[in-house]
Amino acid sequence: MNIIILGSGTVAQTLGSAFIQLGHQVAISAREASKAEAQQWATNSGGAVLAFADIPDTADIYLNCTAGMHSLAAIATIGAATLAGKILIDVANPLDFSQGFPPTLSICNDDSLAEQIQRALPDTKVVKALNTVANSVMVAPGVVPGTHHLPIAGNDADAKSVVSELLQSMGWQAEQILDLGDIGYARGTEMYLALWVRMYGKFQTPNFNLQWQIGA
Amino acid sequence: MNIIILGSGTVAQTLGSAFIQLGHQVAISAREASKAEAQQWATNSGGAVLAFADIPDTADIYLNCTAGMHSLAAIATIGAATLAGKILIDVANPLDFSQGFPPTLSICNDDSLAEQIQRALPDTKVVKALNTVANSVMVAPGVVPGTHHLPIAGNDADAKSVVSELLQSMGWQAEQILDLGDIGYARGTEMYLALWVRMYGKFQTPNFNLQWQIGA
Repeated sequence: MNIIILGSGTVAQTLGSAFIQLGHQVAISAREASKAEAQQWATNSGGAVLAFADIPDTADIYLNCTAGMHSLAAIATIGAATLAGKILIDVANPLDFSQGFPPTLSICNDDSLAEQIQRALPDTKVVKALNTVANSVMVAPGVVPGTHHLPIAGNDADAKSVVSELLQSMGWQAEQILDLGDIGYARGTEMYLALWVRMYGKFQTPNFNLQWQIGA
Repeated sequence: MNIIILGSGTVAQTLGSAFIQLGHQVAISAREASKAEAQQWATNSGGAVLAFADIPDTADIYLNCTAGMHSLAAIATIGAATLAGKILIDVANPLDFSQGFPPTLSICNDDSLAEQIQRALPDTKVVKALNTVANSVMVAPGVVPGTHHLPIAGNDADAKSVVSELLQSMGWQAEQILDLGDIGYARGTEMYLALWVRMYGKFQTPNFNLQWQIGA
């Protein structure tokens, strides 16, 4: 598949490298394609770098791995027409570190980043996924023991099936992937980050995840 | 022990009955002690009912099981002097159902109910606990399989030890109780409710909980 990742930071690079190892064609992206860390990744991985403004409408899947507070600006630069009819996996969280640690969420409680992106891109199939685990867990779920879970949310069932298959190609088992429902359910998974950042401080490793235990 | 529970709803009644079965003296409470559902519970369980304004300073442990949006008003009626030097287990979540389902949180993101209560009661040892599970799980953690977790938070280590012992008397194992840190950590566990309410809709049972799985 041809995969274009919005963003060029650690999450974009980690997912990009994993997709390349799975045989996909991958580009990461930034405001300027000349960005040093992005070009370094491309040299090391065999991937490409695009400027947001130059992202084409030809990819099979797009992922939003920009910092959540900047996602809507990046998407505005790319344009709704480019992403119309496409699957966009929204991996970002609207974490605001401007007041230090712990971060707050710049969108919270009665809205979510994923919902705002879906409203900005009404013809795009937005699927929230992977935002509840560290990048090390995203691409190698086996680093965490147990049948831990990955919640996903989105309005389009076919798009969620495609995303589920992509996740399974990275090592997630079908029973680990929990389809919560429509994109509104992303609100719960983004707000979970407030707990995630605190557990990260306690566990002193990013390699953790939650597993739902369900009784009668 | 002598235990006084702020509130008279389902959570107050369920915890109250569990404490009575463990041999403790228990009173639940409401704005008016004559409240019918509270008196009914007292008749059935052997517990007592108090008006908020009549709550004495003689209990060993207090629990806040009021609806989160009304907790601070109830505490103001009781008065900071009554609760000074005491342990108050804050079980409540600031769920706002005024706009329907799913609820929002009336306090969120840069503050939490537990922190507001601690600020209103500076001489009380506030411990956030039990707010991440349904009342059926609070008093019988074995209804959920696995070594699922109960996060607690508070500024006073001795108070957290007392709370941990009380939890263990209800069936929680020591390894299930996760002491996150100071009362500020309650923010993460309250915001987790945004995910909890959505998982409740998915699982169609309140008898679930999260278990942290931790890798290397």
